Amino acid sequence: MPYRAPVDDYQFLFEHIVGLSKVTETDRFAEATPDMTAAILTEAGRMCEDVLAPLQRPGDLHPAHLENGIVRTSPGYAEGYKAIADGGWVSISASPEYGGMGLPMTVTTAVNEMMSAACLSLQLNPLMTQGQIEALDHHASDEIKALYLPKLVSGEWSGTMNLTESQAGSDVGALRTKAEDNGDGTYAITGQKIFISWGDNDFTENVCHLVLARLPDGALGTKGISLFLVPKIIPNADGTLGEHNSLKVVSLEHKVGLHGSPTAVMQYDGATGWLVGEPQGGMRAMFTMMNNARLGVGGQGIGAAEGAYQQALNYALERKQGRSMIEGGTGTIVDHADVRRMLLTMKADIFAARAIALSCAVAIDMQTAEQGSEWAARAALLTPIAKAFGTMTGSTVADMGVQVHGGMGYIEETGAAQFARDVRVTEIYEGANGIQAMDLVARKMMDGGAAAFALLDEIDAAANAAQDSLPDLATPVADAARALRETVEWLVTQEDMNDRFAGAVPFLRGFARVLGGYFHLTAAQTDPDGAHAKLAHFYITRMLPEYTGALAHARAGAAGLYALTVDDLSR
Amino acid sequence: MPYRAPVDDYQFLFEHIVGLSKVTETDRFAEATPDMTAAILTEAGRMCEDVLAPLQRPGDLHPAHLENGIVRTSPGYAEGYKAIADGGWVSISASPEYGGMGLPMTVTTAVNEMMSAACLSLQLNPLMTQGQIEALDHHASDEIKALYLPKLVSGEWSGTMNLTESQAGSDVGALRTKAEDNGDGTYAITGQKIFISWGDNDFTENVCHLVLARLPDGALGTKGISLFLVPKIIPNADGTLGEHNSLKVVSLEHKVGLHGSPTAVMQYDGATGWLVGEPQGGMRAMFTMMNNARLGVGGQGIGAAEGAYQQALNYALERKQGRSMIEGGTGTIVDHADVRRMLLTMKADIFAARAIALSCAVAIDMQTAEQGSEWAARAALLTPIAKAFGTMTGSTVADMGVQVHGGMGYIEETGAAQFARDVRVTEIYEGANGIQAMDLVARKMMDGGAAAFALLDEIDAAANAAQDSLPDLATPVADAARALRETVEWLVTQEDMNDRFAGAVPFLRGFARVLGGYFHLTAAQTDPDGAHAKLAHFYITRMLPEYTGALAHARAGAAGLYALTVDDLSR
Repeated sequence: MPYRAPVDDYQFLFEHIVGLSKVTETDRFAEATPDMTAAILTEAGRMCEDVLAPLQRPGDLHPAHLENGIVRTSPGYAEGYKAIADGGWVSISASPEYGGMGLPMTVTTAVNEMMSAACLSLQLNPLMTQGQIEALDHHASDEIKALYLPKLVSGEWSGTMNLTESQAGSDVGALRTKAEDNGDGTYAITGQKIFISWGDNDFTENVCHLVLARLPDGALGTKGISLFLVPKIIPNADGTLGEHNSLKVVSLEHKVGLHGSPTAVMQYDGATGWLVGEPQGGMRAMFTMMNNARLGVGGQGIGAAEGAYQQALNYALERKQGRSMIEGGTGTIVDHADVRRMLLTMKADIFAARAIALSCAVAIDMQTAEQGSEWAARAALLTPIAKAFGTMTGSTVADMGVQVHGGMGYIEETGAAQFARDVRVTEIYEGANGIQAMDLVARKMMDGGAAAFALLDEIDAAANAAQDSLPDLATPVADAARALRETVEWLVTQEDMNDRFAGAVPFLRGFARVLGGYFHLTAAQTDPDGAHAKLAHFYITRMLPEYTGALAHARAGAAGLYALTVDDLSR
Repeated sequence: MPYRAPVDDYQFLFEHIVGLSKVTETDRFAEATPDMTAAILTEAGRMCEDVLAPLQRPGDLHPAHLENGIVRTSPGYAEGYKAIADGGWVSISASPEYGGMGLPMTVTTAVNEMMSAACLSLQLNPLMTQGQIEALDHHASDEIKALYLPKLVSGEWSGTMNLTESQAGSDVGALRTKAEDNGDGTYAITGQKIFISWGDNDFTENVCHLVLARLPDGALGTKGISLFLVPKIIPNADGTLGEHNSLKVVSLEHKVGLHGSPTAVMQYDGATGWLVGEPQGGMRAMFTMMNNARLGVGGQGIGAAEGAYQQALNYALERKQGRSMIEGGTGTIVDHADVRRMLLTMKADIFAARAIALSCAVAIDMQTAEQGSEWAARAALLTPIAKAFGTMTGSTVADMGVQVHGGMGYIEETGAAQFARDVRVTEIYEGANGIQAMDLVARKMMDGGAAAFALLDEIDAAANAAQDSLPDLATPVADAARALRETVEWLVTQEDMNDRFAGAVPFLRGFARVLGGYFHLTAAQTDPDGAHAKLAHFYITRMLPEYTGALAHARAGAAGLYALTVDDLSR
């Protein structure tokens, strides 16, 4: 598929919507000047267009597969990965101490999104490595950092996350993998992990697994879990490769999409591992990795949406069908109202989801730069929304892309359906969207809603400021923010968590709709007669009202949900 | 997959919601007593459970394929088809004169839905034949009827619809296939048709194609199109098979799903055909077939939704994960609020979509029995809603089914994703859902909204009648009906069709939401403390409010849609 990196869109968002300048004014990120950011985006974008995008379809047609215990990757993936590694794109946010560029997560988020749009299945590999780098950087010993981080940052080695076991999915605490102290500073790891993305490959020298396991004295549940670094090949102290570890890929899954990404069942048979962080502190260390990965997965959804949008628009601009219903039309189906409605819906939601993700990234960067608790709370609040709404947008936009193609959308050769198949898993992995929504209404509201109210104050101020110049847009956004505030007020007073959980997903969606209204309104103000304002008008008039239904659902509580018995459900 | 035919659900709907008794009180359908209907549903249901459901997965794994020009169907499909034909299930509504049972379309709709749930790709075959039987019955000469109908009704021969050409999809009038008079009562048909469902198979003796083509003097556009019956093998006058016709399958498509159904490119090289209906009257005849098929495709969506729901529920009842948040729970994920929300959403929407489809079928039956114009208008109004909402429900419910399964939902062996892949095409074929929505706001509103207002009067009366006993449910339904009425009033006064088309799909969805509220309310009244009332409460409290956003979109008009230029879209 041809793909055009939307560099200008990111720059507009950086400058006018999410305020990247806040970040670059800090000492920590002073080097990320606008010129540097522009150069980074342009160069990464070109790599995505030229190298990664051509790999998307071959990856689908020729899935990664297991040959005598060795994972063989899809045609061209080794070269594609080399381009990513050589360009330094595995981890541009990593510390310069280990070979990274130390750039803001905001820029990483844009680069990750472009790579996702171009070739989601391959991009998942460096995304996992990024999370591992962050987890090691925060929690590993200096020896481990010195040995592993340069190799991971350069892309010579890659990283994976090993959480899930067949009986322990969303309930990580149910895991059974064991760790035993070898008495020499290492541990013997034994157990089976499933759904390990990029569990192995044939293009990095080593694959480093971060594995959750339980020490003999580990408590039941999540509290007793520790985190271990378990490399496929045990490195010598000088970084050269030593012996193969006692671990192997048992099998690869047959998935709906993302065929280019090998999803492995991993077997650890007393494999040698190193403790990362404190004993029994595994969940804390893993959350560092997961929070990073959650924003990254949200970006995967947005990237897939962008790719699907571009392909659908190209088709709509070429396909002739029926007479045009508008004067001066192109004579193609883009003239038809329903096709145009779909394309605008796609474009408006990509903007909203992208603004949410980049806002989250800015909050993470500010937290890094200033260690300010307000920014940490903002990042924590936005992470589940960025993940869930980004991936929902991936699925709904890719699905609309299929519909724009009509019958051709259902034919695999067209490529429209692959976006939908590939992106579907992003709603599930790294914490299913239901888990994200529960996180939002429970953990992220433990502050009594303070972080949410602070954000709503900003929205109110923005709507107020726009009231004179853009009343038609400002008023509905203010109304929506008020309804959301009332819903948060209701939520935080619910003592029975099930009353929150019953409408958690609709709440998250309603929250995202309101945030989308805020960001679109902000965009409209930069150019009240231009394209951004017109798109904002479309979104605020036609899409924002979804919040009413979503928030009604969010506040309905658990009683009506559990009124139907299991027998009633089965009847 | 195990499948349990929901016979009781149909009987409840027949008796309490859609009023099948109206139909069976007519002379035309007097034989369809409740006992007979029950026996039919039970017997068809058993066939679906025992014979068809086991074919669903093999059909996906072993797609129909072309071998030296011959279509080889999936393993077991020949036996499955034989069970359908032997049971008389190809067409239970066909006239007894030709071997049918003359049963109401309402019963056919339920039987079709069960077959769809069990094995969508195989069920598509008899669905196409049903449409052909109806088209021939209404429009063909007595000779053709006598020769073809008994063979089609018995299932010895199957039927297809040939409309689409590569440049003529939604715009059927752009077709180029030619028909030339052979001077002997036959015509020579030449051209290529694409997307022909079940264009050939290896289990019926003959395949009869209804082909749209243009006579030499045919006007441009849809007005100049005629309909021809073009059999694969030309039958002798006594029904025995003669020579192979000049037509062939060129290729089969690689589709996202529905692999068991061969989707053919058909080539006609001066093939012998017989005119059906008047010259240049092809569209009228084709619409007979298409309207039938549209309701049938809506039923496919509902069937797939039911199958997906059953599988998700079974999984939720078995899968343990985390501790239960409710007292007296099962200890499986069905206890979790978000999983339960998904299951209830699925169940409530299946009920709504099924009630809409069966109401449409009742209207068709009443039109058949009484030739009353009011029933014709009701059927015409409900057909696009039944098709589009039924298939949207198929997709959204199947997608939720994947989500209920978590990571397992993304693994093909689980089977959850197959429902989603298979059903996706139903939103596209037989008139994409955008086309259905345009039909609803344009053709179906040519009466100034009379048919819609008549239905809204019924809803008002029902809400009024329930006001005392179920005020919490009746009031929101009355409010929703009022908002829908205002939207219809707005719609019918829009002279520029693009103002209607711009929000046509959201309008259809809002209309369906309101109808769902009506039917759920009616169900609640039968048993104000029972499961139907609880499900109605869930739907009306949490799902019905979607109408507010949908109708806001419906009334937004075209100006804001076209404000963004094609350049703006491409930026």
